[in-house]
Amino acid sequence: MAKKYVYLFGTRKSEGDRSMRNLLGGKGANLAEMSSLGLPVPAGFTITTEVCTHYYDNKMSYPSQLSKQVEAAIVEVEKKMGAKFGDPKNPLLLSVRSGARVSMPGMMETVLNLGLNDEIIEGLVEKSGDPRFCYDVYRRFVQMYGDVVMGVRPEGIEIDPFEQLIEKKKHKRGVELDNELLAEDLKELVVEFKAEIKKRLKRTFPEDPKEQLWGSISAVFNSWQGERAIRYREIEGIPHNWGTAVNVQSMVYGNMGDDCATGVAFTRDPSTGKNKLYGEFLINAQGEDVVAGIRTPEPVSLLKRKQPKAYKEFEDVCSLLEKHYKDMQDMEFTIQQGRLWMLQTRSGKRTAAAAVKIAVDMVKERLITKKEALLRVNPADLDQLLHPTFAAGKKSEVIGKGLPASPGASSGTVIFHADQAEELAAQGKQVILVRLETSPEDIGGMHAAQGILTARGGMTSHAAVVARGMGKCCVAGCDDISIDYKKDQFTAGGKTIKKGDWVSLDGSSGEVMLGEVPTQEAKFSREFAQLMKWADEARKLKVRTNADTPHDSDVARRFGAEGIGLCRTEHMFFEGDRILAVREMILAEDEKGRRKALGKLKPIQRRDFEGIFKAMNGLPVTIRLLDPPLHEFLPHEAAQQKEMAAQMKVPLSQIKKKIDSLHEFNPMLGHRGCRLGITYPEIYEMQVEAIFEASINAKKKRIKALPEIMIPLVGTVRELSDLKAMVDRVASEVSKKRKTKLSYSVGTMIEIPRAALVADQIAEQAEFFSFGTNDLTQLAFGYSRDDAGKFLPEYVEQGILPTDPFQSLDQEGVGQLVSMGTERGRKARKNLKVGICGEHGGDPESVAFCHSVGLNYVSCSPYRIPIARLAAAQAAVSNK
Amino acid sequence: MAKKYVYLFGTRKSEGDRSMRNLLGGKGANLAEMSSLGLPVPAGFTITTEVCTHYYDNKMSYPSQLSKQVEAAIVEVEKKMGAKFGDPKNPLLLSVRSGARVSMPGMMETVLNLGLNDEIIEGLVEKSGDPRFCYDVYRRFVQMYGDVVMGVRPEGIEIDPFEQLIEKKKHKRGVELDNELLAEDLKELVVEFKAEIKKRLKRTFPEDPKEQLWGSISAVFNSWQGERAIRYREIEGIPHNWGTAVNVQSMVYGNMGDDCATGVAFTRDPSTGKNKLYGEFLINAQGEDVVAGIRTPEPVSLLKRKQPKAYKEFEDVCSLLEKHYKDMQDMEFTIQQGRLWMLQTRSGKRTAAAAVKIAVDMVKERLITKKEALLRVNPADLDQLLHPTFAAGKKSEVIGKGLPASPGASSGTVIFHADQAEELAAQGKQVILVRLETSPEDIGGMHAAQGILTARGGMTSHAAVVARGMGKCCVAGCDDISIDYKKDQFTAGGKTIKKGDWVSLDGSSGEVMLGEVPTQEAKFSREFAQLMKWADEARKLKVRTNADTPHDSDVARRFGAEGIGLCRTEHMFFEGDRILAVREMILAEDEKGRRKALGKLKPIQRRDFEGIFKAMNGLPVTIRLLDPPLHEFLPHEAAQQKEMAAQMKVPLSQIKKKIDSLHEFNPMLGHRGCRLGITYPEIYEMQVEAIFEASINAKKKRIKALPEIMIPLVGTVRELSDLKAMVDRVASEVSKKRKTKLSYSVGTMIEIPRAALVADQIAEQAEFFSFGTNDLTQLAFGYSRDDAGKFLPEYVEQGILPTDPFQSLDQEGVGQLVSMGTERGRKARKNLKVGICGEHGGDPESVAFCHSVGLNYVSCSPYRIPIARLAAAQAAVSNK
Repeated sequence: MAKKYVYLFGTRKSEGDRSMRNLLGGKGANLAEMSSLGLPVPAGFTITTEVCTHYYDNKMSYPSQLSKQVEAAIVEVEKKMGAKFGDPKNPLLLSVRSGARVSMPGMMETVLNLGLNDEIIEGLVEKSGDPRFCYDVYRRFVQMYGDVVMGVRPEGIEIDPFEQLIEKKKHKRGVELDNELLAEDLKELVVEFKAEIKKRLKRTFPEDPKEQLWGSISAVFNSWQGERAIRYREIEGIPHNWGTAVNVQSMVYGNMGDDCATGVAFTRDPSTGKNKLYGEFLINAQGEDVVAGIRTPEPVSLLKRKQPKAYKEFEDVCSLLEKHYKDMQDMEFTIQQGRLWMLQTRSGKRTAAAAVKIAVDMVKERLITKKEALLRVNPADLDQLLHPTFAAGKKSEVIGKGLPASPGASSGTVIFHADQAEELAAQGKQVILVRLETSPEDIGGMHAAQGILTARGGMTSHAAVVARGMGKCCVAGCDDISIDYKKDQFTAGGKTIKKGDWVSLDGSSGEVMLGEVPTQEAKFSREFAQLMKWADEARKLKVRTNADTPHDSDVARRFGAEGIGLCRTEHMFFEGDRILAVREMILAEDEKGRRKALGKLKPIQRRDFEGIFKAMNGLPVTIRLLDPPLHEFLPHEAAQQKEMAAQMKVPLSQIKKKIDSLHEFNPMLGHRGCRLGITYPEIYEMQVEAIFEASINAKKKRIKALPEIMIPLVGTVRELSDLKAMVDRVASEVSKKRKTKLSYSVGTMIEIPRAALVADQIAEQAEFFSFGTNDLTQLAFGYSRDDAGKFLPEYVEQGILPTDPFQSLDQEGVGQLVSMGTERGRKARKNLKVGICGEHGGDPESVAFCHSVGLNYVSCSPYRIPIARLAAAQAAVSNK
Repeated sequence: MAKKYVYLFGTRKSEGDRSMRNLLGGKGANLAEMSSLGLPVPAGFTITTEVCTHYYDNKMSYPSQLSKQVEAAIVEVEKKMGAKFGDPKNPLLLSVRSGARVSMPGMMETVLNLGLNDEIIEGLVEKSGDPRFCYDVYRRFVQMYGDVVMGVRPEGIEIDPFEQLIEKKKHKRGVELDNELLAEDLKELVVEFKAEIKKRLKRTFPEDPKEQLWGSISAVFNSWQGERAIRYREIEGIPHNWGTAVNVQSMVYGNMGDDCATGVAFTRDPSTGKNKLYGEFLINAQGEDVVAGIRTPEPVSLLKRKQPKAYKEFEDVCSLLEKHYKDMQDMEFTIQQGRLWMLQTRSGKRTAAAAVKIAVDMVKERLITKKEALLRVNPADLDQLLHPTFAAGKKSEVIGKGLPASPGASSGTVIFHADQAEELAAQGKQVILVRLETSPEDIGGMHAAQGILTARGGMTSHAAVVARGMGKCCVAGCDDISIDYKKDQFTAGGKTIKKGDWVSLDGSSGEVMLGEVPTQEAKFSREFAQLMKWADEARKLKVRTNADTPHDSDVARRFGAEGIGLCRTEHMFFEGDRILAVREMILAEDEKGRRKALGKLKPIQRRDFEGIFKAMNGLPVTIRLLDPPLHEFLPHEAAQQKEMAAQMKVPLSQIKKKIDSLHEFNPMLGHRGCRLGITYPEIYEMQVEAIFEASINAKKKRIKALPEIMIPLVGTVRELSDLKAMVDRVASEVSKKRKTKLSYSVGTMIEIPRAALVADQIAEQAEFFSFGTNDLTQLAFGYSRDDAGKFLPEYVEQGILPTDPFQSLDQEGVGQLVSMGTERGRKARKNLKVGICGEHGGDPESVAFCHSVGLNYVSCSPYRIPIARLAAAQAAVSNK
């Protein structure tokens, strides 16, 4: 038997259903489903996506059986609609539309009103008794066909040739609007259009309806490989070999009089999620008019008054569709002379807030299960709900646009130096820190600022990463602005903004605005809390946070953190006066000098840890010992070096000499992490002492401290075993001295590829692994996060990489190291605790991957915790 | 039955043999072997290494059976030697010596002349009739026992207390030399020694011979865990749990008169390999005297005249031993009153030249097979044979010592700038380039210089790597020198050396010498050629070279290269005027500008390739497309930037701006390799055109060019497939234009960890893999080769890493990536050609690894080719 290429819908029997989306496309599958449900769908048929594939695999030719199947389908449609395609006495008009597996709005071609010629139009006029309507339809058809199928396009700067003729006609008639033209004018235009086509293309407009049909079908298939469509698929990651289906459907008209209407509607409010029919319509109009915006559509609720019968029917259809699809529907409909026709239904797009509300409401309505509800919300979209936003409708002049590096909204006065930002913030001022780029020295100022604006750097630049960690609004890499540090000002959009001027940042769009724009804090709905509760019940992965301060720890707990997965001790080294002690340590000539300076740091570190233990009372706290190379703690700029010399009362030359001696060509691969711990054991010793002393002090206040000491950058088992021996020694010393037992564990970051390869050896020493996927990605790819901006965007654009691997874990490559490391580690130590603490811990796809390879937890910045919780739940629910 | 802890030798029946080295130690096993051969060995026994292990596993106690077994052994020894241990009438004296599996010279303790006390000495005097000799033996025994066993050591700056007493005695007697003291004096000294011991230790010197014996045995076992011994084992990589054996042996004396002698000898000349007995002896002396150097020993050939009978016997023993062991032997012997005693034999250490000659000679003598000969020469030692050396005996004042970064010897006048070095060399001058450190800009000057001296950087610094590649002498990281570029001079060892002064470098020792020292070129012996021929027959791995110029290619072919495994095109970018075109390309605003500049470069590159193809006629040439980031081609220093601005007639600000925009925090992980090829396709296009055009031009001259185009730094398959498509396109264009067929292949470096992980995907595109183990090591460990000097030496010293992973491939970690990449690659493409082209290609252990994982070839710098050939042969021979 010949393969089936054509599926009927809206006829006596629908041949498809919604499960056949891959074969029939989304539109075709849903039209078939609706007609199976008995809903009023104009009869038609779908030519499958397989035909599209065949078409491109066979030099743009069709399967031999196709034309016969199409003809048979037309006969069925004719029967149902009581009209005949190409019959001048009772003509059937058709539309031809694309329909891929997933919606590609506006990317492919459509031909409407097909099946007319100079003979048939007469019959149509006679049958309908409305010559103006009929000639308008004919005019639209010739115009559309001439453009889409035949290829009449404006040349150079010319305006559309058909529109030119219409303009001429209106001018001649002395009217302004298209609909002021009379039937006779439109009839003339059809003739003129055809002549224009002939003139331009040396081809005649086809009068044969069948030729028109096949021309239209080919035009739709061709548009699958059109430039726009290809580009769209590349961006959206849609495979080119999916192909599109073609839907051929009887025309219905919403513009045949005041008993006609056309509209679009949602079964619930897509913005708030409220369970109320939502949408708009136009009386006596065609679908395109609603979109075109020439007339203002009315809210769908008014249709009740204007066409109560049709409205009632529509309401029933909506209710039935939602119950059937168990999801909020986005529909197109037309009322032709009082009769409702459904032209499309699909799951409706919605805001994050609406998604949450709809999902939770539908569970209450027993439409869906909790598990289904969890899958209904895109975790990444939750980000919209967690950050401050500009108060509704409030905006201001946009003077530049950068990368939306960390979401949220903020306003403040411009300041160019981190230390000044701290000072002003201490005085209660709201400031926006503006820098070419930020560096670890700026941490204090970044913390103090309301928002951060940088002129350089990408989505994973220092500013972006730190700001996201702090949940602070940041616009990065805004090359529209030009900073002059000397003059304390920047220029953008032709304006000069001086220190102290107000600006506002939209971290979700990347916009930089002039002046102060009021913001509002995020509020969590009841439904949000409910969904999160379900997520927690469902997920297997624990979710921890990356937090370095008691404040961040508090925020994270409120967002549901189940411990700290990464507490970076170096951030504590920068704050306030402590940097002086750090620098004294670095400048010291010998171990004795270093120990002296470290002695000053210890009580400060201890207090830091006490605060964090208090905030995390009873939850595990993974503390990473010092990681960055020492030169990061010394000032880069000459002025600050001078200042440091004065402060520390040492000659400037000594500071310069030290900076020289610490200089590294590739600091990322340099003298950092446990390499410092091995060569300067006294630094780690001080940190470990501070941790244990804080732990004992906490205990005395009835706070339960659960420190997990994490050794960074381990590449060989000996690094870990030597440092673990040190930790154990210090623990027993402190324990003895304070006469208190200590409980703690020692583990390591797996962030060096070699560590993943020899994870079995390392797990003999480590009680836990935490994959540092930032560094692991840098090393597995050989990319420097600070430099990759020079080629990564182009790599993503060209499709060499599917996404930025610093944003979503490269499962194919880096993922192998994660799964290999986990597997080998657990082989050596069965109960090894394994987590990740890179930026990826807050990326839903990466969280799903972590679930799939059996990690125990992910750790992410506080503001991404709800996202990780939901993503973890989805992974658990859909993995089954 | 009780376990056997004691093995007899030299008695009626020897219980051990040379195969029992692990149990009896090297010395014990060979003593047993010699006595089994019927050679005159003073009777004795060996206490096994298992006793040592037991001793340390059981709180320094012995197996219960040991003392009985020792007593029984002594009885056997007494029988053989016709004397009794502890019998005043006929005393047997013993020595107690250590003996581990491998020789640890001087690292453990020895006690001689054991078995004397005040009563026994009388008997000995009576028996021997030589009181002076006897009391000297007694004096030596008490002194040695007091020191080694009892622990009398000088305190603080004091000189040895026993020596003090001897000095006092000589002073009293008015004599100068020890041997001028009389028997009476020596007798007094014994009394004084014992008193001193009592005074210092509050313990009495043991008069019981058995107590003396056990004290000595324990002292030897204890010395296994002495500080010196532990340190030595760490350096040499000897496991601590091997333990030492203890050899207890009858004393024989070479100092009982003029019919006595003692000496050491080799069966062949250890320096040249000549087949002639070689060694030295002293008449009437003890073994220690030969070493001590108070009397000058005589060549062993003279013994023939002085003691013809003993000499004849010794000659026979030597011949027998060499035939038996099938290797050149290093022996100790003593002649006591005309009777020969053999005290030790072992395989003798030898120079590389001797090793080669002995191995080849022994094959001719049918002593060993070719395969055995191949295994007799340490490949790394061949390096000594390949480079120039200082003419024999010529040296000069050493003013500093750095790292022996690239072997060889060179003399020249000091110059501090690369461009000046080039100028002077062009005038025929010999120069030594002296720099703080070198950078790619200095390549020309390095090539022109005789040798390179740097004040900073390690064994894998730029200077070291490049110099080794060029086979040029280099001393790196010499912090004894202090350079002043402004004054064009450096100071070292209190001397100031100005531009134009002569210095000499020894790249094999790291010494920097004042003035000109004559050098001599390496000459290859007939035996060397023979051994290499056997190596080539035996090996499975091909050996290629890393070479960037026709000159290097020629050298490499002479050394036996079978093609080029790595031709770095960027080195060609620096030479002469071409750097100007490169810089023009970098400064260009757009693709058009870049293409224009590249147009100037193309003919130059083409000529380069033509030269290389000619040198490698018929052999494959792997050409790596541009690899380093563009900023490496711009000058670092202000003065040179100014010069560049003037030369190129562009404002300095433009150059600075470009340098700023190209700046990278981690250039190693930056915009380089195929990332350049993707973002600036025109660069690679030019290179590929030049390759193909050169290939066709070569063909016209009947030169067979076999280019293999290698894409560097591939991490994702798309990088390779996109660039491969470009190569194929250019090939077909050039081929069409020149109407000539082209044969070539396209492959990739595997130097990014991710590439090894997805090697199966990459092999679908790549026709060959070349592991770039330098970068692979950098990324797998997260080490920057340029910076690792800050901690790597300490890592190796502390034993965290067994060796510098940039010198010898880290088989455990990086090796996994190599074997995984090979395996996965071959799974996707069965006939995938796989090689390595990192520095490791010339390291014998790494070569063996490459053989074991089934690579097709290794590629190394020209001067290391013979090493790689031999190492590959050894791997094949010992692997089967």
